[in-house]
Amino acid sequence: MKRNTDKYQQILTAAIKVFAERGFSQSTISQIAQEAGVADGTIYLYFKNKDDILVQFYERMTEHVSSRFWEAVEEGQTAVEKLHNLIHAHLDVFQSQPNGAIVYQGETHLQWRLVQEPTRKMSKMYRDIISKVVALGQQEGVIRNDLYVGLVKRLINGAVEEVINTWIHTGRDHDLAAMAEPLVELFINGIGTRKGQQAIGNQAPQDFIDQYGDT
Amino acid sequence: MKRNTDKYQQILTAAIKVFAERGFSQSTISQIAQEAGVADGTIYLYFKNKDDILVQFYERMTEHVSSRFWEAVEEGQTAVEKLHNLIHAHLDVFQSQPNGAIVYQGETHLQWRLVQEPTRKMSKMYRDIISKVVALGQQEGVIRNDLYVGLVKRLINGAVEEVINTWIHTGRDHDLAAMAEPLVELFINGIGTRKGQQAIGNQAPQDFIDQYGDT
Repeated sequence: MKRNTDKYQQILTAAIKVFAERGFSQSTISQIAQEAGVADGTIYLYFKNKDDILVQFYERMTEHVSSRFWEAVEEGQTAVEKLHNLIHAHLDVFQSQPNGAIVYQGETHLQWRLVQEPTRKMSKMYRDIISKVVALGQQEGVIRNDLYVGLVKRLINGAVEEVINTWIHTGRDHDLAAMAEPLVELFINGIGTRKGQQAIGNQAPQDFIDQYGDT
Repeated sequence: MKRNTDKYQQILTAAIKVFAERGFSQSTISQIAQEAGVADGTIYLYFKNKDDILVQFYERMTEHVSSRFWEAVEEGQTAVEKLHNLIHAHLDVFQSQPNGAIVYQGETHLQWRLVQEPTRKMSKMYRDIISKVVALGQQEGVIRNDLYVGLVKRLINGAVEEVINTWIHTGRDHDLAAMAEPLVELFINGIGTRKGQQAIGNQAPQDFIDQYGDT
């Protein structure tokens, strides 16, 4: 039983390395078998086909990330601490597995139909966490009451992913997790001065509220 | 000469449609020729190979987007107007060509080596625009003086791209360009109340400044 789990993990790790280097579409079962040091046929004892490997990677990644994120958020006391811990965990989980980061960030756009279900779960999980953190911050009086959580989720997730992509594309030579602090600072403070903040005010059109209020 | 330009554009449009539907890696020259209504051989009068089509699409897209963005920014009077115009143009350019949006957003991660040069140009252009807008806003006193432009660029670009991806993945049923206003509001105001903003302050570690100060 233990040996089977090891071999499953060994194949999965090899597959993600091959996907990261060649892209999912250009990778073959033979390349994965060679990388894992097993016979081609062994792959099929654990996975239906190449698509199934990607889907299982996404499902496990979603589960792993989900429990890491919730744990990180639970460990914070205040809303700002929770937000910081979430973003730190997000950066750290990808920093610790660069091949997973490359495959996850890239294939989500291209294999959309294939990974739709785990991606939807991940997206819902992220929204639930942000909702919880925003609600707590509103209770504490440190986060605004007039926010649309759907858009806040996209602001935070988009910025964090862009920072991860920069890290991937610049050869991963800086400490990714250390970016959590300046990111949280930007989310909370924004880029405006008080004068700028007063000038722009806050008016959201109704169709925007319809679109991003509850998604 | 005019006829050649038309055919070039016809093939490029067809190719982007095929790439958007099947992904770049799984698309063939024959599929593109069929979609464009030309013989396979005609493709090679205009493009070296399939890679060359993607590279030329990226180069033209970068040029097109670049002049659209600068124009949009020039048309604004204040920093906030310029920022709004930039984001509106960004959303609008992708809304007006959904196939281009799908290919551009997806293949940048996967065909990184292939599209490295135009992507680098696009990234530099975006940074230059943000630098200019931030500098003007600082002069006007509406944007903070203690910002690291490299991170602000990633905040804005990441959030805007996440909103574009949401639009792509939810069937493109809402007005994408209308999201410019609430996005600018979030960038300027942040998600914190004044109490939250005072509590978090602004301290950036030195290695963060080294990393994102000038990139």
